[in-house]
Amino acid sequence: MSYKDWVRQELWELSTSLGFHHTPPEEIKNRLARIRTGMEEQGVEALLVVGKMNCYYFSGTTQDGLIFIPLEGRPLLMTKRELERAKVESPIKEVVSLKSNHELPLLIQTHCRTLPSSLGLELDKLPVRDYFRFSELFPETKLTDASSILREARKIKSPFEINLMKKAGEIGKKVYYEGQRVLKEGMTEIEFGGLLEAAAKRYGHEGLLRVNSLNYEAYTWHVLSGLTGGIVSQSDSPMGGLGLSPAFPVGASRKVMRAQEPILVDFGTCYHGYQADETRMFSIGKMKQKFVDAYKACREIHDMVLEETRPGADGETIFVRTLRLAEKLGYKDSYLGPPGLQTRFIAHGIGLELNELPFIAQGRSTFLEEGMTFAVEPKIVFPGEGSVGIENTVAITGKGYEILTPASQEIFQA
Amino acid sequence: MSYKDWVRQELWELSTSLGFHHTPPEEIKNRLARIRTGMEEQGVEALLVVGKMNCYYFSGTTQDGLIFIPLEGRPLLMTKRELERAKVESPIKEVVSLKSNHELPLLIQTHCRTLPSSLGLELDKLPVRDYFRFSELFPETKLTDASSILREARKIKSPFEINLMKKAGEIGKKVYYEGQRVLKEGMTEIEFGGLLEAAAKRYGHEGLLRVNSLNYEAYTWHVLSGLTGGIVSQSDSPMGGLGLSPAFPVGASRKVMRAQEPILVDFGTCYHGYQADETRMFSIGKMKQKFVDAYKACREIHDMVLEETRPGADGETIFVRTLRLAEKLGYKDSYLGPPGLQTRFIAHGIGLELNELPFIAQGRSTFLEEGMTFAVEPKIVFPGEGSVGIENTVAITGKGYEILTPASQEIFQA
Repeated sequence: MSYKDWVRQELWELSTSLGFHHTPPEEIKNRLARIRTGMEEQGVEALLVVGKMNCYYFSGTTQDGLIFIPLEGRPLLMTKRELERAKVESPIKEVVSLKSNHELPLLIQTHCRTLPSSLGLELDKLPVRDYFRFSELFPETKLTDASSILREARKIKSPFEINLMKKAGEIGKKVYYEGQRVLKEGMTEIEFGGLLEAAAKRYGHEGLLRVNSLNYEAYTWHVLSGLTGGIVSQSDSPMGGLGLSPAFPVGASRKVMRAQEPILVDFGTCYHGYQADETRMFSIGKMKQKFVDAYKACREIHDMVLEETRPGADGETIFVRTLRLAEKLGYKDSYLGPPGLQTRFIAHGIGLELNELPFIAQGRSTFLEEGMTFAVEPKIVFPGEGSVGIENTVAITGKGYEILTPASQEIFQA
Repeated sequence: MSYKDWVRQELWELSTSLGFHHTPPEEIKNRLARIRTGMEEQGVEALLVVGKMNCYYFSGTTQDGLIFIPLEGRPLLMTKRELERAKVESPIKEVVSLKSNHELPLLIQTHCRTLPSSLGLELDKLPVRDYFRFSELFPETKLTDASSILREARKIKSPFEINLMKKAGEIGKKVYYEGQRVLKEGMTEIEFGGLLEAAAKRYGHEGLLRVNSLNYEAYTWHVLSGLTGGIVSQSDSPMGGLGLSPAFPVGASRKVMRAQEPILVDFGTCYHGYQADETRMFSIGKMKQKFVDAYKACREIHDMVLEETRPGADGETIFVRTLRLAEKLGYKDSYLGPPGLQTRFIAHGIGLELNELPFIAQGRSTFLEEGMTFAVEPKIVFPGEGSVGIENTVAITGKGYEILTPASQEIFQA
């Protein structure tokens, strides 16, 4: 049997027997309808999508390629390497091979009869070289920025997507409980981080976290103990940790963990590309009272955010209320980072990427809608001493919210 | 003590005591001299570098920011979040805070007195939106593509860099030996991959692998057993594996590993950003003879490549010789992938990223030079059955080569 025939005949059954949930055709249909509303509003005649997560969203496959989405008519999936596997994985009916971008105009013209007069691209991530190439290949077509249409389309999650995020949250719950069992005094942060990662993979976590950014890297082994919890780094986060070297100056370090220290574990999980982001506190023996108190304040702020979470609520108003509550509780200068380095958001949208819409943040008026999913993460930082925080991923429902990360919110004491 | 003072007074000592090797000033000086030769040849008056690994290469820090490199005079490091930490980590003397890209022209003008007439950018990775923004901010400056100057500058590694890659290779060796101890029949590929990852982190691996690409994702848990080793996927690799879902269709899957199957483990390690890429074969009990024989052929091809490796050798000639040897050994249709999907390279440059120069590949005439480092990886694929391969990371020396990945090349039998 040729390899092509093997893929056609065997791959679907093998992959589903080993836990693959392929995206249903109905799901793709609904997503295309949603993006076309945005395209129509913005006067975009067609999209040429290159980003991996956007391609996955509209095709159900991450085989290397591009997807062309006209305002009317069928989308065209063009695959650069493994055509047969893309055909097996995707509900898209028209899947063709693309040897080089040079072939794009002909493939699109064959598919649609004409080339579009305007073509939306992801200018927030498309490299300039590719843009210049597209300009040459489509000299009569107006190239426009479709980044925000795509971000808007993805901000409302379907029940299918929320269910995958729940599965990620269930993996996280198992990881936190296993963490409590394996944590021991004298372990380094990175050793503990590695054990959490191994447990997560055994429970179904895909290992990579994804973020829509040129330079921001997401990772799971964010284990900060005592003073490393008070260190800020490259990311827009209340604390980054020390990390392992100047090349990776975030997350777990070689610091040995000691009894009574606050141990902050911010561990994201991923299932079928859908992520859940979660933070819990650990300690070896009883945690010092100062941190127990600060963690109680984080939980109070977290609960206040969720009480306000419902369709129609304004994110910026919620953020400002958390500032007032943190001040009232005595944490004005330590809430969300050290003075001068405090972050200005309390929640970030999450799904296939860790920085989706909405942001509940200062200076961003955002009305919450049913189907949005975000991670809310109040944190308190004491430089030179340590930090505490809690984080849960939630979905906005018709009346309020549902927590997708079900691990206990108490301190995990080893 | 303020947080800023804490960083100034404590961070250097804390981080060096926990294993950080900061880039020496001499190293940065040599790298600047090298890039300026390229700039002069190409007529580029200044560079504005945004990519994380390029910024690390020239500054020794990965704190979020940009680096401006004029042809003459001091470079200027501009940091977006943690200025004090960047100052501690970088030998660059001029480090300033950058709140928004809007401030770039003023900061550069203050630093250099005038704005450059031409500015080189990384057009292979810079998003189009940022490029348009830079065009507005520097209306009188010609923006040019400096991607290839940067790639060329980074292709020759210093002894400092090669030493960090050796450390990564030593971590890999420990991981492979530990893998042999923990591998058991009935384990899934992903469970084994997680255990290897946990071991690697305990030995100093930084967890992330990096690649210069919009969509290509590097990862370490590439464990393929039996038939999953015969599956091709999104990456330009002889075999991709099944993976865990359509969102991550590469590497280890939930397949249970069985006795006598070939188990291919392609596990990269990273130390201070410098990577070593390595593949070894495992088996539970004795591996089936067909695969033992094919693995012997891979080692023969691997050894032939290294025999040819010396300054002045032509990469393309070496690649073509491997095709002939594979054919002579009886593996014409299985060498580097299934028919129709065979890859066309036998080695890729490696350092801070997994796809650096040089490539030893078809259609790319490349003369090897002392100080280049690459991973050579002959692989043989039998669809529906499994695959075998070996991979080592090597540095080109004055007369030949040095292997940086010292694990035994025999099959690791559990």
